[in-house]
Amino acid sequence: MLERFKVPDADRVYVAEDKIRVATNTIFLKVGLSDEDARVATDVLIMNDLRGVETHGVSNMLRSYVSGYSNGALNPRPEIKTLRESDTTATWDADRGLGAHIGPAAMWVAMEKAEKHGQGAVSVTNSGHLAGAGYHAAMAAQEDMIGMAMTGSGGVQAVPTFGAEPRFGTNPIAYAVPARRMPPFLFDVATTQVAGNKIRLARRVGAGLIPNWVAGPDGTVIDRETDGIPDEYFMLPFGGTRENGSHKGYAFAAVVDIMTGQLSGAGPGFIHQKTAHYFQAWKIDAFMDTDKFKDDMDDFLEGLKNTPPAPGQERVFYPGLSEFEETNKRKEEGIPYHREVIEWFGIASSELGVDLDLP
Amino acid sequence: MLERFKVPDADRVYVAEDKIRVATNTIFLKVGLSDEDARVATDVLIMNDLRGVETHGVSNMLRSYVSGYSNGALNPRPEIKTLRESDTTATWDADRGLGAHIGPAAMWVAMEKAEKHGQGAVSVTNSGHLAGAGYHAAMAAQEDMIGMAMTGSGGVQAVPTFGAEPRFGTNPIAYAVPARRMPPFLFDVATTQVAGNKIRLARRVGAGLIPNWVAGPDGTVIDRETDGIPDEYFMLPFGGTRENGSHKGYAFAAVVDIMTGQLSGAGPGFIHQKTAHYFQAWKIDAFMDTDKFKDDMDDFLEGLKNTPPAPGQERVFYPGLSEFEETNKRKEEGIPYHREVIEWFGIASSELGVDLDLP
Repeated sequence: MLERFKVPDADRVYVAEDKIRVATNTIFLKVGLSDEDARVATDVLIMNDLRGVETHGVSNMLRSYVSGYSNGALNPRPEIKTLRESDTTATWDADRGLGAHIGPAAMWVAMEKAEKHGQGAVSVTNSGHLAGAGYHAAMAAQEDMIGMAMTGSGGVQAVPTFGAEPRFGTNPIAYAVPARRMPPFLFDVATTQVAGNKIRLARRVGAGLIPNWVAGPDGTVIDRETDGIPDEYFMLPFGGTRENGSHKGYAFAAVVDIMTGQLSGAGPGFIHQKTAHYFQAWKIDAFMDTDKFKDDMDDFLEGLKNTPPAPGQERVFYPGLSEFEETNKRKEEGIPYHREVIEWFGIASSELGVDLDLP
Repeated sequence: MLERFKVPDADRVYVAEDKIRVATNTIFLKVGLSDEDARVATDVLIMNDLRGVETHGVSNMLRSYVSGYSNGALNPRPEIKTLRESDTTATWDADRGLGAHIGPAAMWVAMEKAEKHGQGAVSVTNSGHLAGAGYHAAMAAQEDMIGMAMTGSGGVQAVPTFGAEPRFGTNPIAYAVPARRMPPFLFDVATTQVAGNKIRLARRVGAGLIPNWVAGPDGTVIDRETDGIPDEYFMLPFGGTRENGSHKGYAFAAVVDIMTGQLSGAGPGFIHQKTAHYFQAWKIDAFMDTDKFKDDMDDFLEGLKNTPPAPGQERVFYPGLSEFEETNKRKEEGIPYHREVIEWFGIASSELGVDLDLP
């Protein structure tokens, strides 16, 4: 994560993983989730916080979920309907269930199909927020599979290249691939220049924009640094400008809309504004000896990590490496939350009438 | 394609599709391909030229293929070995066959598996150049499937974000998705800032670099415009700089290396330097009613095309749209080749001892 997104030292409150896990789980149970769904949804958020992906941890998301359950946008006890199914595919109506527990359930089905037939995929319509795609993809990597997850959101905020009106959400894509000795490859990115939550986070920590991060309200790329976050803006596809490859970010955003929205029946995101997901698992052994694959992955990831850095750079990472290191650190030191987040837990505790053991 | 890559007016020779097709097919037959393989490989190159993707048409590629057949790097009569196979997957050793005809054969098998089981994939090792991934992905879209193709090359030329040594080829990814009324979605991009062939093309047409397109030999991003193409450089992942999302381009490049190299047994590209491919087909009907899907795709693509443009922009495209329009134009007007390309055909004609009917 870029420095500008980090919680300033003075505002940090360190909380042990156990404590934030219990507090989060308590809230999920209180809003009506089953024990299993609460456990899984908590695990998704805490994994994000441990990895340093605060944008998709409890800070930004939990309060919005609680409000979704209270206004009826989210259903705490969804009954999943299978709309269509084949050897290797399924399409689900998630009955307004939160993606943070629907996603793992869908990925599990994709993995069962992959176990039997080599690959499996589940597309999901009528769901709530996924809470990042990384956790879901990573499930497959733990079972000697390659995992992929995408989510297309109802929030239409990103313009296509050259466009003046938004057509996409942040439409993230994640891939996870196992190795043997090396920390797994885990890649989870928005197809916009910056994740939507990162803009909110930047506002919270008082950071500004850097050039080509967003467009103004008429679609013109803001190609200069700003002091704060403008009131009105549109997100840009990653790359930012056409010259820097924004047409590629745009194309990946479109692929996510297609695989999540059109394939699940939700329809185009910018028309129907439904949250939809897509999960895919590939069984490595269906293609290649799993041991050889993992050895090759070790060589691959080690070779990337050991790439000599360019002048002025400390080291080269591969996707998942710095987050793996951050997880180890945070498991030991606790997770640094902005004090406002802890204050929110205090408020939620009285409003929901639950006891939470937090600083 | 950006203006700087276009063949200057004075250097253009327009050739009718038929004529260049016959000439190309004649050369493929002369170097020893079977009738069917020559026909398919020709079709791949001419489709690229018709779509305006001259970087992967006859201009850049045919002479390198001819030299590959003559030095033994390519095998004109490959015997494909199936290394592993399941309901939905296959892994092939392509016996040094050119990707331009191996790819369509592999995609066909992926589609047959998808027809039966919902999805299918074929990974390929020990092959030659794919000639772009778009043609291969597009095959699936013609049969009511979503198609995806990737190729990891032996040519190691792109640095990872912050890195000073190259670890990747241009590692392109293509997706193709059918619609009903609208020209199909077809997205085919390098995961580097610019395709390798585009740099060669820029050199041929005398164009320079724009900022953040490549790094110097020590890995430092060249963040200014240049007059010509430097003698030594490395490619950057798309995005260019970390701030503009190059870590995302890097991650997609790594996914391509994994799906093509590690999954086929070729191993990491930067270690084993083998050309490997990956092809995937998803049958739409396994997820969703195909008619509804295509209607949704029409709405989606029309909505993208009709996005009001930002100030200073003429219109908004979607991936595949301008190439579709260019194809119609070139089918009528002929394909504009650089005169050097036509001169090469003249030389090849005498060297190979074949008659070619070209200007």
